[in-house]
Amino acid sequence: MNILVLGAGQLARMMSLAGAPLDLNVISYDVGSGQLLHPLTLHTVDQTLARAIADCDAITAEFEHIPDAVLSQCQASGKFYPGQEAIKVGGDRALEKALLERAGVPCASYQLITERAHLEQAIERLGLPLVIKTCQAGYDGKGQWRLRADSDVELIWAEMAAFLAADALHSIIAEPMIPFQREVSVIAVRDRAGNIAVYPVTENEHTNGVLTLSLARAVEDDIHQQAVDAVTRLAPALDYVGVLAIEFFDVDGQLLVNEIAPRVHNSGHWTQQGTLCSQFENHLRAVAGLPLGSTEAIGPSAMINVLGQAAIPAQVLSVANVTSHWYGKACRPGRKMGHINVVAGSEDLLGEKLLQLSALLPQEHYPGVARLGRELMQE
Amino acid sequence: MNILVLGAGQLARMMSLAGAPLDLNVISYDVGSGQLLHPLTLHTVDQTLARAIADCDAITAEFEHIPDAVLSQCQASGKFYPGQEAIKVGGDRALEKALLERAGVPCASYQLITERAHLEQAIERLGLPLVIKTCQAGYDGKGQWRLRADSDVELIWAEMAAFLAADALHSIIAEPMIPFQREVSVIAVRDRAGNIAVYPVTENEHTNGVLTLSLARAVEDDIHQQAVDAVTRLAPALDYVGVLAIEFFDVDGQLLVNEIAPRVHNSGHWTQQGTLCSQFENHLRAVAGLPLGSTEAIGPSAMINVLGQAAIPAQVLSVANVTSHWYGKACRPGRKMGHINVVAGSEDLLGEKLLQLSALLPQEHYPGVARLGRELMQE
Repeated sequence: MNILVLGAGQLARMMSLAGAPLDLNVISYDVGSGQLLHPLTLHTVDQTLARAIADCDAITAEFEHIPDAVLSQCQASGKFYPGQEAIKVGGDRALEKALLERAGVPCASYQLITERAHLEQAIERLGLPLVIKTCQAGYDGKGQWRLRADSDVELIWAEMAAFLAADALHSIIAEPMIPFQREVSVIAVRDRAGNIAVYPVTENEHTNGVLTLSLARAVEDDIHQQAVDAVTRLAPALDYVGVLAIEFFDVDGQLLVNEIAPRVHNSGHWTQQGTLCSQFENHLRAVAGLPLGSTEAIGPSAMINVLGQAAIPAQVLSVANVTSHWYGKACRPGRKMGHINVVAGSEDLLGEKLLQLSALLPQEHYPGVARLGRELMQE
Repeated sequence: MNILVLGAGQLARMMSLAGAPLDLNVISYDVGSGQLLHPLTLHTVDQTLARAIADCDAITAEFEHIPDAVLSQCQASGKFYPGQEAIKVGGDRALEKALLERAGVPCASYQLITERAHLEQAIERLGLPLVIKTCQAGYDGKGQWRLRADSDVELIWAEMAAFLAADALHSIIAEPMIPFQREVSVIAVRDRAGNIAVYPVTENEHTNGVLTLSLARAVEDDIHQQAVDAVTRLAPALDYVGVLAIEFFDVDGQLLVNEIAPRVHNSGHWTQQGTLCSQFENHLRAVAGLPLGSTEAIGPSAMINVLGQAAIPAQVLSVANVTSHWYGKACRPGRKMGHINVVAGSEDLLGEKLLQLSALLPQEHYPGVARLGRELMQE
């Protein structure tokens, strides 16, 4: 079976690696260049998008920021999963908020901003500090502002106004800064028949807005249930097929949705080692119309992102049940280059392995590893 | 790192899939066509073997029947693992027997045959029935004879004589037919520093000389120890680096070596699901000079070969912790097309899963699945 993926980055690459054993051949459409290519070898394929759409058995996407015309072309084929609406919701915070309200899933209150007066309203209604984000672009900390004091309004509004002026379709959303205890996410998968399987909730750490560390272990039943509730409300509302990732803030035990990603997600990379059917395999199974695989964890797992580092010490691989996943990309500062997965038989042992790794990985490039290791061993 | 693999079949393909996450780019040299190609996409690469040897960081092989000139060319580079001698030993039963005797590893008695008189000697010394095999070619049941009665000698000798006459380098080996209780194999890996890691012993079932079913579970300590002894004698004797597979006959609790394969092996395919570091990953780690990964099993595992079947019922994937691995090959009768891996939390549960699978997989194409399932549930 041939699976066309919109996007040619690491997520498509890892889908390709997960798909080959299932006889699912993944081909990528690089939205930027308009070229079709193999997501592992990056060999270009001399084919039009229309031909690729006609030739494939299913279409999916590895990111949300895809031109409407391409989405419509894929949608018209009748084989696009999770489909145009889900991708657009994932790529537009205003649509996302509307969906969350419609589905009755808790999230932070917000104010849409298209003119200066809306910003004043946001300050009045939501209070300071505010987190202000562009609706249609930006994740991993890009295109975001923090408004902490009235004295910053002029400076930040100038930047916002420039952004709004650049494109009539642009809009901006403001939310109160949520005093959360932790960030968690859930990775779920829904098949064409509507069956849903949910991976264990993952606790995530971000540094400068970018995911640096994920931890998958048994969480409180109530937290798990809230995550499952969100999935079972949102996925059917979108007639969703494939992997759906939802990021939450945990505020005193209540989960508020921060972001919906209609795709495989960085916080689910641990499933490559920590389960027998990774998010990549399950996503492909779903979009290809195959039965879902088990989402059960083998044991407590962690994932460490490799950001802007071209290599890691080889000794990292000498820690039992640790492996690395590289994306085959040229190294640039801060760029997601790969990740390290760790699985253990218990939280204690996972902590021990993280401490071993922290001795090999410089703290400034891999923040939180030592601390998490110590925490897991003390609990 | 670039890894050059001699051979472009499914073993190279699975190495490529295991290598990509480790940033190990596998390129294949197709010995038959003399072409370099990507073992997953089969895209040819316009390069000479000499250039590929110069450009790569390590060389390995996925099969044994490689022309001497190619082996020597690779050996001269100083980066060929496990190296020319190991590959030649694996491809020549006479060299294999000599190694086994030198290393003091038990195997069946034998007689080399290059003329009619040797056949008579074999019958007299080893008795009937005899298993007669060509030394330099043939596995998976090809190029083998069974001599059961004196009345068959003329017929079989005629075939043997024709084979010997075809090439001065040909030779033949005769062994008594071993009354074994079962066939087992061990997959081990040795790194450049001489460290050895051993996967759990695998019990194998062959049908018409071709592997159909593997079972990996805890075996008797004594059997495990004999397998480990064989590995620790043979691997250092060959200064071996990489995965080494040894097939044995279990004769009343004594293991006799049947065959040595200086490569990843079909009876180790279960490690893709049944461990956190498959034989493919560990082989590449070894030849690339990286630390070895854990060879511990997650749980009892089985592998079912898909022979001459272009597809399996999709419902196979609905059994928890079952996945399939396809090789991307055109279907021909009896051809190894892929395999199915099954992992479970206990032997009982593994038996249950095999029974579920046997209801989906026709007995004539997948012999032994139902029987093994019942056996595991009764034990």
